[in-house]
Amino acid sequence: MEIQKVCILGAGNLGSRVALQSAISGYQVTVYDIDPNAFENAKKTMSKILYQLEKEGIVTKEDSTDSMNRIHFTLDVQEAVNEADIINESVLEDVEIKQKVWTQFGEIAPEKTIFTTNTSYLLPSMFASFTGRPEKFCALHFHDVFYSRVVDIMPHLGTDPTLIPLLEEFGKSLNQVPVLVKKENHGYIFNSMLMAFVGAAGKLLTNDVANISDIDKSWMVNFHMPMGPFGILDSVGLDTAWHVTRNMPDKSSQAFAALLKTYIDAGKLGEKSGEGFYSYPKPSYRDADFLR
Amino acid sequence: MEIQKVCILGAGNLGSRVALQSAISGYQVTVYDIDPNAFENAKKTMSKILYQLEKEGIVTKEDSTDSMNRIHFTLDVQEAVNEADIINESVLEDVEIKQKVWTQFGEIAPEKTIFTTNTSYLLPSMFASFTGRPEKFCALHFHDVFYSRVVDIMPHLGTDPTLIPLLEEFGKSLNQVPVLVKKENHGYIFNSMLMAFVGAAGKLLTNDVANISDIDKSWMVNFHMPMGPFGILDSVGLDTAWHVTRNMPDKSSQAFAALLKTYIDAGKLGEKSGEGFYSYPKPSYRDADFLR
Ligand SMILES: NC(=O)c1ccc[n+]([C@@H]2O[C@H](COP(=O)([O-])OP(=O)(O)OC[C@H]3O[C@@H](n4cnc5c(N)ncnc54)[C@H](O)[C@@H]3O)[C@@H](O)[C@H]2O)c1
Ligand SMILES: NC(=O)c1ccc[n+]([C@@H]2O[C@H](COP(=O)([O-])OP(=O)(O)OC[C@H]3O[C@@H](n4cnc5c(N)ncnc54)[C@H](O)[C@@H]3O)[C@@H](O)[C@H]2O)c1
Repeated sequence: MEIQKVCILGAGNLGSRVALQSAISGYQVTVYDIDPNAFENAKKTMSKILYQLEKEGIVTKEDSTDSMNRIHFTLDVQEAVNEADIINESVLEDVEIKQKVWTQFGEIAPEKTIFTTNTSYLLPSMFASFTGRPEKFCALHFHDVFYSRVVDIMPHLGTDPTLIPLLEEFGKSLNQVPVLVKKENHGYIFNSMLMAFVGAAGKLLTNDVANISDIDKSWMVNFHMPMGPFGILDSVGLDTAWHVTRNMPDKSSQAFAALLKTYIDAGKLGEKSGEGFYSYPKPSYRDADFLR
Repeated sequence: MEIQKVCILGAGNLGSRVALQSAISGYQVTVYDIDPNAFENAKKTMSKILYQLEKEGIVTKEDSTDSMNRIHFTLDVQEAVNEADIINESVLEDVEIKQKVWTQFGEIAPEKTIFTTNTSYLLPSMFASFTGRPEKFCALHFHDVFYSRVVDIMPHLGTDPTLIPLLEEFGKSLNQVPVLVKKENHGYIFNSMLMAFVGAAGKLLTNDVANISDIDKSWMVNFHMPMGPFGILDSVGLDTAWHVTRNMPDKSSQAFAALLKTYIDAGKLGEKSGEGFYSYPKPSYRDADFLR
């Protein structure tokens, strides 16, 4: 089968990015949300990204206009899913909301439509039966689409294996590097490794082995990276990191979750709140003399 | 006190690099080893690095010659330590050998000499009493000196705190970014994080969640890095990784250690043996189409 029409559920941070890349790649795109304000924000996000891509010479002004013209925003479920070859769901990371959405779209979507979810830490098996077509359902998990161009393909036990190569091709057509998660795993591939090294950084801090900046410096200098674990945590959001960390059973994760909680309780959620381990918009790790 | 003369114990991989950077930074350097062949290899390593630094415009041909002229190789312990302001020890990673070496140099080194060890996974407290001057003894741990320019300063409980700022200045003078490890920790700062994320990669592999190349791709693409965890393991050496991993008590580290052992038993030690998780000198992760 050939994918021509893409339906995105949820016009938030991730949904708008996947929708935009789909349009840039030439697909017809409908974006569905329950909140019309989300569309305004999505359009702003898309314009910003297109402006950046134009500056980098990746798209022309004309490409940008054409792409935006291929995206249709709608509050109407029927209109959203009409003729859709594939759905990629990026609604709120909440089990019940996702189950409700999949029940709804399972009933009205055309038979041909492939169902995929972008969930970050939940598992496709939690939603498969709600879709009414578990064999056509799979996780297709993007990162940030433009800077981090990995897409995880993670089937549940009931996913039809012939879906995998199709999703690989689709991922490639969206300028992503597809990777296969052979069995269900919380955090796919990258997030498992990310949380492990960030957790090790948290342990160094809570055990008072080293301070925040020396831990970040070690990572940045040795790996020639623009931020270290605490800078990364600030950009992920300390609330998100806390949600993941507090579910880990070991003692040092619990200690780190407790530390994160003190930041959160003080209103420090990271970059988005202006303060986390560093202060924004000018965190010290971006200073020219940080690595001295 | 001002550091002018640097004594390096062990002319191996690390010793030759620290010696060379010390000479480039203008110090007088003596390099001691028990094996004269080590000196020949050290000179080759140094020439290669200088050639590279010249190509990059970091040193001139004249700087190179001057630097090499500041390095004196010797099999004689007295000559090695004569007038030395600081010793940086990079002999074999073996407790007994290091204890023997520190006993020997503790007896003959001038009173003023500061003692530092480059040990990767042992702790300075294992050697402090052997030096005869525990207050003047501290870990000063380099990474690869030229590409990864972090130097860990890790005191043991008996280290004189006034040594720390002195070692920080010395580290900076060697073009390194000094970081303080406030209390003894196996693996300092960076290696703790490195082993955590590499361990998570190992767990993904031994649990059959994903294959080697998909795990590496996830890391490389999302972090824009030239290699992923298995490429890194190949460059660290699977034997070294095994030594560290098998000492970790948790089940998944044990499973990964067991996997590493099968590679080692098959003679696959990573890049240095021509084969590890990838085949060298042309591992597939360096192929132009690896990230497709
Ligand atoms: N933000 C990231 O970096 C990232 C990365 C990968 C995956 N994800 C996943 O993508 C999903 C969305 O994350 P986000 O960061 O874009 O969240 P977001 O809060 O920015 O957007 C969620 C959107 O879902 C909408 N929504 C809520 N209930 C809905 C419903 N019943 N029907 C339709 N839309 C509804 C909201 O109005 C909102 O616009 C989550 O599952 C998250 O785990 C996020
Ligand atoms: N290789 C690395 O990337 C790295 C990084 C940081 C620290 N280190 C640490 O540096 C130390 C050396 O590692 P390496 O990789 O250079 O090892 P290496 O095997 O390349 O060199 C060790 C040298 O020590 C010499 N030696 C053995 N016994 C000696 C003695 N009694 N007196 C003097 N010299 C003796 C050997 O002849 C050899 O030349 C180890 O403690 C290691 O953990 C290594």
